[in-house]
Amino acid sequence: MKGSVFIAVSLDGFIARENGDIDWLPPGGEGEQGEDYGYKAFFDTVDVLIMGRHTFETAATFDPWPYGEKPVVVLSSNPVTIPDRAARFVETMSGSPGDVVEKLSKRGAKHLYIDGGKTIQRFLDAGLIQRMTITTIPILIGKGIPLFGPLHHDVKLRHLETRQFSNGLIQSTYEIKS
Amino acid sequence: MKGSVFIAVSLDGFIARENGDIDWLPPGGEGEQGEDYGYKAFFDTVDVLIMGRHTFETAATFDPWPYGEKPVVVLSSNPVTIPDRAARFVETMSGSPGDVVEKLSKRGAKHLYIDGGKTIQRFLDAGLIQRMTITTIPILIGKGIPLFGPLHHDVKLRHLETRQFSNGLIQSTYEIKS
Repeated sequence: MKGSVFIAVSLDGFIARENGDIDWLPPGGEGEQGEDYGYKAFFDTVDVLIMGRHTFETAATFDPWPYGEKPVVVLSSNPVTIPDRAARFVETMSGSPGDVVEKLSKRGAKHLYIDGGKTIQRFLDAGLIQRMTITTIPILIGKGIPLFGPLHHDVKLRHLETRQFSNGLIQSTYEIKS
Repeated sequence: MKGSVFIAVSLDGFIARENGDIDWLPPGGEGEQGEDYGYKAFFDTVDVLIMGRHTFETAATFDPWPYGEKPVVVLSSNPVTIPDRAARFVETMSGSPGDVVEKLSKRGAKHLYIDGGKTIQRFLDAGLIQRMTITTIPILIGKGIPLFGPLHHDVKLRHLETRQFSNGLIQSTYEIKS
């Protein structure tokens, strides 16, 4: 089982403003016309998308539903309102990152896409992320929702690749050393 | 007058552990034998180095004194203990970043090297940094002294160059848009 992160971040390490706004991202970041920064190629390799409730609630405001028919797991111990257009593809789970990975592994999933700040932090700290692709946007926003958080131990990474885009975005892919 | 930052940072945005340790940096980072990541070439273009008291106190533990005969300004409103071997090159100043830049400009300084987390944050927020070279180390340390901090407004950057090193360090240089 492999867990991956694929995310954009301000140079000062935020994935969104405090209120969730991503107005500071350049346009076309997720498969619209033009550059998609490798997102679709990555997304096509994913079996299940895992996210927290906050990220899901932001995604649920998008119409059309942004994840197609990809299975989505929302981590929440409380009930989550799932829009009708997504109901066939979304389920909620609670429990530790390890429990969730085990459950999905038993169903045959091989590649998990872990999304959202808190969820990424929990999976990283549990040693359940093997690869991260981080696209750095050339802006400082000062405060917001951080990509990374406290860890119980250092996490050493192996740099695999860095791509530069003409609009100044820098995309680095790292493998987590085990 | 130009203000520059040249600094190494963990992938999660820290310039040191909470106690100031930089044991997680790869060896040879500052002009020892082997790769210096462009540090000396940068340092040679600098007229004055500006740092806060904490950064100075760390530098003061190094023997030999790490900054040669380069003029160093320590920002502190309290007395600072300056080691004898550095006394000829170091002075303290208080006042706002703008005051300090004005004073140094009147003396003919044209290129300031701004170092240390809090000092960088204050100069950035005051619009007194024009260029940043950030070398990202492939490690997450979880907590520590952050490079960036709150800002009164977004700071948009222009990406100038990104270099990759064989040990996985990624060095990006940005210009601050005014």
